[in-house]
Amino acid sequence: VPPTALSERSLSANGWGFAGTSFPPPAALLSWLAERLGATAPRSAVDPTAVVLPAARPLPELPAAVSAEPMDRLLHARGRGFSDLVRLRSGRLPAAPDAVARPADAGEVEALIQACSRHGLRAIPWGGGTSVTGGVNTLAGAAPAVVVDLAGVAGLRRLDARAGLATFGGGTTGPALEASLAPHGLTLGHFPQSWELSTVGGWAATRSSGQESLAVGRIEELVAGLELVAPAGRLSLPALPASAAGPDLRRLALGSEGRLGVITEVTVRVRPRPAERRIEALLLPSWEAGQEAVRVLSRSGIDLQMLRLSDPAESEVALATGLGGHSWEPLARGWLRLRGVGSEACLLLVGGAGSVVAADEALDDARAFLRRQLGRGGVVSLGQRPGRRWLADRFRHPYLRDGLLDRGIATDTLETAAPWSALPGLWSAVRGALVGGLPGEAVPVLCHVSHVYPDGASLYFTFFFRAAADPEEDIARWAVLKRTATEALLAAGGTLSHHHGVGSWHAPWLHREVGEAGLRILRAAAREVDPAGVLNPHVLLDPVDRLEE
Amino acid sequence: VPPTALSERSLSANGWGFAGTSFPPPAALLSWLAERLGATAPRSAVDPTAVVLPAARPLPELPAAVSAEPMDRLLHARGRGFSDLVRLRSGRLPAAPDAVARPADAGEVEALIQACSRHGLRAIPWGGGTSVTGGVNTLAGAAPAVVVDLAGVAGLRRLDARAGLATFGGGTTGPALEASLAPHGLTLGHFPQSWELSTVGGWAATRSSGQESLAVGRIEELVAGLELVAPAGRLSLPALPASAAGPDLRRLALGSEGRLGVITEVTVRVRPRPAERRIEALLLPSWEAGQEAVRVLSRSGIDLQMLRLSDPAESEVALATGLGGHSWEPLARGWLRLRGVGSEACLLLVGGAGSVVAADEALDDARAFLRRQLGRGGVVSLGQRPGRRWLADRFRHPYLRDGLLDRGIATDTLETAAPWSALPGLWSAVRGALVGGLPGEAVPVLCHVSHVYPDGASLYFTFFFRAAADPEEDIARWAVLKRTATEALLAAGGTLSHHHGVGSWHAPWLHREVGEAGLRILRAAAREVDPAGVLNPHVLLDPVDRLEE
Repeated sequence: VPPTALSERSLSANGWGFAGTSFPPPAALLSWLAERLGATAPRSAVDPTAVVLPAARPLPELPAAVSAEPMDRLLHARGRGFSDLVRLRSGRLPAAPDAVARPADAGEVEALIQACSRHGLRAIPWGGGTSVTGGVNTLAGAAPAVVVDLAGVAGLRRLDARAGLATFGGGTTGPALEASLAPHGLTLGHFPQSWELSTVGGWAATRSSGQESLAVGRIEELVAGLELVAPAGRLSLPALPASAAGPDLRRLALGSEGRLGVITEVTVRVRPRPAERRIEALLLPSWEAGQEAVRVLSRSGIDLQMLRLSDPAESEVALATGLGGHSWEPLARGWLRLRGVGSEACLLLVGGAGSVVAADEALDDARAFLRRQLGRGGVVSLGQRPGRRWLADRFRHPYLRDGLLDRGIATDTLETAAPWSALPGLWSAVRGALVGGLPGEAVPVLCHVSHVYPDGASLYFTFFFRAAADPEEDIARWAVLKRTATEALLAAGGTLSHHHGVGSWHAPWLHREVGEAGLRILRAAAREVDPAGVLNPHVLLDPVDRLEE
Repeated sequence: VPPTALSERSLSANGWGFAGTSFPPPAALLSWLAERLGATAPRSAVDPTAVVLPAARPLPELPAAVSAEPMDRLLHARGRGFSDLVRLRSGRLPAAPDAVARPADAGEVEALIQACSRHGLRAIPWGGGTSVTGGVNTLAGAAPAVVVDLAGVAGLRRLDARAGLATFGGGTTGPALEASLAPHGLTLGHFPQSWELSTVGGWAATRSSGQESLAVGRIEELVAGLELVAPAGRLSLPALPASAAGPDLRRLALGSEGRLGVITEVTVRVRPRPAERRIEALLLPSWEAGQEAVRVLSRSGIDLQMLRLSDPAESEVALATGLGGHSWEPLARGWLRLRGVGSEACLLLVGGAGSVVAADEALDDARAFLRRQLGRGGVVSLGQRPGRRWLADRFRHPYLRDGLLDRGIATDTLETAAPWSALPGLWSAVRGALVGGLPGEAVPVLCHVSHVYPDGASLYFTFFFRAAADPEEDIARWAVLKRTATEALLAAGGTLSHHHGVGSWHAPWLHREVGEAGLRILRAAAREVDPAGVLNPHVLLDPVDRLEE
């Protein structure tokens, strides 16, 4: 994993990630979509430098470096969810932060947050700004809004190699974090799709899960200790391997999305850096057989890094595009037909890591296990080339949305998780809700099992629809799909989110998962540390449907 | 593990566990103690039927079966910590519950708790009553106290074999829980020392850890969902494999020790029952080399069930007693001297489980790994006999305290955990605090690493002192030792408790671990669900030192 110095690359003001980086939609994907959506009209984005933001309101003197430059305000106005991209591309933003503050350390964060509390200013913590749930958006509101950019509260602070504990400033990005561990032969191993941009504080605040969580665990398991700064004071929770000293307040901080404080420091559990990462692509006979095979494989004790099982539709697209650009159809198709692989076939990526020998051994063991499970003919290996391609592109996939929007194709993803027994019903329900969500319009849907646990798994859906001429119309259609899919997934026993968090967009549904009693407890905790309610007030606990704001 | 029907065995009213069960101190232990403490005078316990309790105060009508029988009140007056045993044996109790309520289901628990809230009655949830931290004690107080015995809210409710999820009533004991899983070939694998008596709700409430947590995880990892009943309503958290839907409120319930509600239902992650359990005893050259060996072994990927490393003093006692009754000294000592094992040698128990082949393979791998680490001569195997003895006796060890008290020897345990780097200093500090804790008196101390994690481990201390003639004097001395050891362990970076919980005895120190901000959040949550403050009011959040109450 090459380290990337964020400061050396400028960010895109109206798309995912870095300016100048793109991931053009593969021709095979475009033709697959054209078959379903028909022809679409190209759509351009307005020049960000020409965007006129709502006027910045005057602010009192704040105890940190503060900028009200238009480009700064624009770059910190929204996360990078679907409606964010549409609004940023259209240049019509209903609101923007009145200032961007850049505290230099936890002390400045504390002084800044307290000043916000005194003056009734909204304070919106900002890590990588990659939220896809409206988690960092500045919405219209009477109280002026200050984005608290944590880029200055970053870097490795302490390394305890014997215990395998590394302490970072909350604003440390994925590449900076791994780059500071690499010289010690260590890794965190937490690789969410946003890894190049997002921060360890952001991962903790949103209960993030990396693509290799099968091997290293979710961020909850990786965080040993942390420090939160709120108007009422600091919450410092030391790094401990385990404890029974009352409820684990780390777990209340994890997922608190700014409502309980700004995460200024995180101590994570690190491990030896694997020498090698290997991914094998396999085809399994069907979605049902695939789920069952993955379920038992995940309980087999074989030391795997990743299991990623695509449903038939996603498998078809993945095979057609060669997993991103290098199509090896129609050769592969012909060969697969010879092997008896039909249209129900599902693509499974199996990852192993460690020494070269260990990684290969894990893949050999997994393949042999699956062949015992499904019969020799039920498991067709496609080798390691698709996996290498996937690995090379994994942080570029989000750029695909921008390229599709350029071509008039709207796309978004959503995800959930449930016990194994509920998974088939959950898949049908969410898929059905999306496919039928826009009457008279095609909504193609792809899905994969992205994270696997002994008791269940997550489902990650990608859906597409024709972009309208009017951005507000795009957002309205997208909101319809989000609402119907969210209702469907909750009714089918899925969680509101497996790894994207709640933000402002999922917040109206949170009571369905944790109950009114759960919400009351969270509100009481937030009130206690933030009596004026200035910390990221529209996320997590705000019951208003803000999908279209 | 044979199932034990609790209802068929009556409980001891003034000692650990079941009436008529005992674990007489081995002669070798008594002589080891006599060498250090000198001769001690036998001490008898008063007949429980002759104990006169403070008069039960009249209560309003309550919506559950209620008993004010003296023996019921006595059996539910205290947990089974050191001062509890001393008070129960002396027959002098400062307080007792005014009634014992036995709700039949979660609905009755809810009605009962609401009635307690309306009438200002303390409600003390009771599972197995095995707390060693004052966690279920009825203390003197103006508000009448009702113990809520959950024996009726028990049993397997649902089993989802595909997901490996089993839902139990909160009052289900360890043996009942395993007995209902056994016909399905499943196990929870959670075996705290109190397992024969304690309940799944109690494990959850106190963040319990079982002796095989290395293989199955702590109770936090085993609980997938749960239901709490509080005066303000029910908190029902569904079983999910993973989620990012805000902070995980399960982790706020886990460790809440009754303050956030009564745990009426728990869904746990179960797994296939291992055919075999094997434990090998090894001698390692020193405490320091042993800790380092265990640290790297725990990161080796070898699939172990248990690692338990005794310090030199505990190793000496364990070898002398043959780990409980069957002494094979002096033969073993002579042989060990031949092998060059000196007085610094440390006993390591290594557990493997699974099929017979897998269990043996794990032990072979571990032994080979340790010999690579420490050299062939550094690892002396004592075979599997000590482990079989330990396994046979593991739930009987707590009875030892009663047998020692009969002989005028006071003993208690305490435990903590810390990162590996802090462990040697933690051991010295706590050991030093205890050894020097009673000026002019010998306090022999034993210790072992009881639970191992990638980033650290727990330390479990056992200490002894001469019992005084007066029970109050015993308790005062014990309180001195608890205070000095607790100060020492916190100052050395240890957690207040690794698996015994906070209760009332550790509560005055909780702020040292979670800070004032942490305490404020917990208090706000408790206030929200229990505005009248009736739920177990002296535990967790009560800052008063109640060691001597």
